[in-house]
Amino acid sequence: MKFVLMPDSFKLSLASAEVCEIMAESIRKHFPESEIVSVPVADGGEGSADAFLTALGGQKEYVQVSGPYAEKIEAYYALLEEGKTAVIEMASAAGLALAEGRKNPEKTGTYGVGELILAAAKKGVKKIILGLGGSCTNDGGCGAAAACGITFFNREGQSFVPTGGSLKDIARIENRNKSPLLRDVEILVMCDIDNPMYGEQGAAYIFAPQKGADAEMVKRLDAGLRHLALRIREDLGQDVDTLAGGGAAGAMGAGMAAFFGARLQMGIETVLDTVHFEALAKDADYIFTGEGKFDGQSLGGKVLIGLARRTKRLGKNLIAVVGGVEDGEIAPAYDMGIGAVFSINRLPMDFSLSRPYSRQNLAYTMDNILRLLKM
Amino acid sequence: MKFVLMPDSFKLSLASAEVCEIMAESIRKHFPESEIVSVPVADGGEGSADAFLTALGGQKEYVQVSGPYAEKIEAYYALLEEGKTAVIEMASAAGLALAEGRKNPEKTGTYGVGELILAAAKKGVKKIILGLGGSCTNDGGCGAAAACGITFFNREGQSFVPTGGSLKDIARIENRNKSPLLRDVEILVMCDIDNPMYGEQGAAYIFAPQKGADAEMVKRLDAGLRHLALRIREDLGQDVDTLAGGGAAGAMGAGMAAFFGARLQMGIETVLDTVHFEALAKDADYIFTGEGKFDGQSLGGKVLIGLARRTKRLGKNLIAVVGGVEDGEIAPAYDMGIGAVFSINRLPMDFSLSRPYSRQNLAYTMDNILRLLKM
Repeated sequence: MKFVLMPDSFKLSLASAEVCEIMAESIRKHFPESEIVSVPVADGGEGSADAFLTALGGQKEYVQVSGPYAEKIEAYYALLEEGKTAVIEMASAAGLALAEGRKNPEKTGTYGVGELILAAAKKGVKKIILGLGGSCTNDGGCGAAAACGITFFNREGQSFVPTGGSLKDIARIENRNKSPLLRDVEILVMCDIDNPMYGEQGAAYIFAPQKGADAEMVKRLDAGLRHLALRIREDLGQDVDTLAGGGAAGAMGAGMAAFFGARLQMGIETVLDTVHFEALAKDADYIFTGEGKFDGQSLGGKVLIGLARRTKRLGKNLIAVVGGVEDGEIAPAYDMGIGAVFSINRLPMDFSLSRPYSRQNLAYTMDNILRLLKM
Repeated sequence: MKFVLMPDSFKLSLASAEVCEIMAESIRKHFPESEIVSVPVADGGEGSADAFLTALGGQKEYVQVSGPYAEKIEAYYALLEEGKTAVIEMASAAGLALAEGRKNPEKTGTYGVGELILAAAKKGVKKIILGLGGSCTNDGGCGAAAACGITFFNREGQSFVPTGGSLKDIARIENRNKSPLLRDVEILVMCDIDNPMYGEQGAAYIFAPQKGADAEMVKRLDAGLRHLALRIREDLGQDVDTLAGGGAAGAMGAGMAAFFGARLQMGIETVLDTVHFEALAKDADYIFTGEGKFDGQSLGGKVLIGLARRTKRLGKNLIAVVGGVEDGEIAPAYDMGIGAVFSINRLPMDFSLSRPYSRQNLAYTMDNILRLLKM
């Protein structure tokens, strides 16, 4: 028997790697001879590098880079596939945790993320997967671009490294000094949201408040991003104004597209491609997935639906184990390829009370599913 | 494919017959060609006659009898197996609902239950199954006995029909006028509790408060039962003082044993025997059961455990679908023969909120179990 485990995290209770562990333990108990392949699904945020390492093996590289306030910090990326692919978590150099107690998206920048990109490129990787998520910045990726040789000039003709608050000072952008190391590197950005760079659904309005911006700052940040979009259009001849996902991670999505020619892709698709899902799953008997709350339409649901689509194409059995299923969301899921969905709630109990039991409830549910499969 | 459905009720939300219906509907959807046998498990209380009728077919007989206050009411029993077996719910002639607004276990009696027994005997049944449960009485079955010809004399030598409050007046019991109709009728009493006739764990102390007794009345009722036990010992030469289950239904358990030679049996065993479980299940592919809350040790658990024991002997697959599973109660259940247990809670939600969704949550869970079985 072969089992492939590709769960998302159970938000607020279990990381995807923990879900894999619990599932695998249950499977080993009931099918001790089986082959188990664990692929914790990375969402681009913290833990993504580790998730890819669990799935594919490789090593973690530690690099000294600039933090969000240009202080020196140690960040990391994962090297996979014999050094051909790097996975970078944006949060490792520009994450909210690094700005704890001093959150200010006007002052913070993504320079360190660019340094990580360069470091990976220097290692000779052919592909960089950049996970967005949990950033404390709103600089449209200008910091990262500056680290890689893109030059930002102010009205006095001086070059500077923009942050969220100084995007408005960009008078010209020039990319002829962009590092040649990046020439043959494909950059893929994991991005599960559709928000555009600016406007009412843009990075500043939707996400900056969590990063410490008040209403006035949101307006200024949004104006800065509009100005950046204009400069990108005029100086680089690129239009990222309405790019879906451009607003992700303080408009890092838009910046990665404009400055690095990066492609924005659903996280689950990136994971599936990177682990060579079809090869992995073609001889699997059962594929297990899971997530905190299955609601079909939401962000979270994208992992299950993305996985279901590819599983269905292979004609494989996909079983989802979830923290909860919203009413009425389940019927279309079966058509999309999810074979069966089980909730882990042993008792009718509010989440505030059941949350500490997530681990044992998941183990209990897996155990019973496997008992059924053994019948 | 053959499915046997033997669920208990989901207390507070679904009757066992409803559970059967929901399960059967789900099975028909996924296995339209399958044979489905529904045996809603009766607990002896209201609905027991219907449950047996659903399982085995037969008819309902309506009879005019005395209610708990000797008023005329219409009660019923079920005739099964071509008239060879009757199922009587004690509640139909002495139920709490019949005393609503005037509950008083000193004044109420079980005469009508005896009339139902006689009516069934007159029909020529060979076996009577009497379900206890939900009674408003505490007369130790004296009313029922009187209806069947047992004579109770007071100190003045006059015969009378005792109620809970007048047990103390019984000076002598005589059974030579007991109806000859009962001579060859086997009486089985469905009884899932262990409480004895009297004492701190007896009928009066444990159950009379729900029937309207205050602390003083409880003491008087208990004294009455002690006196009745003494008279049964001296006049009938029988010792039911410590009989397990003697305290059921206002000591109806003890009375049935003493006056009718009835055997007290776990409800689930009675159901399993009556439906000829082994013959029914020997060619089944899956047996489904269920209950409101699986907690192994409790009253409720007895149905699942009783069923599991017999299913295991047949080497069959038993799947339980339940409203909730108490922590730590599940492990021994597997050894006892339960193959797998699934909770119906789709979301982490308190029972007060999820209760109205019991029906759809059960349907959802069955649906996914069947999807898994189809894989």
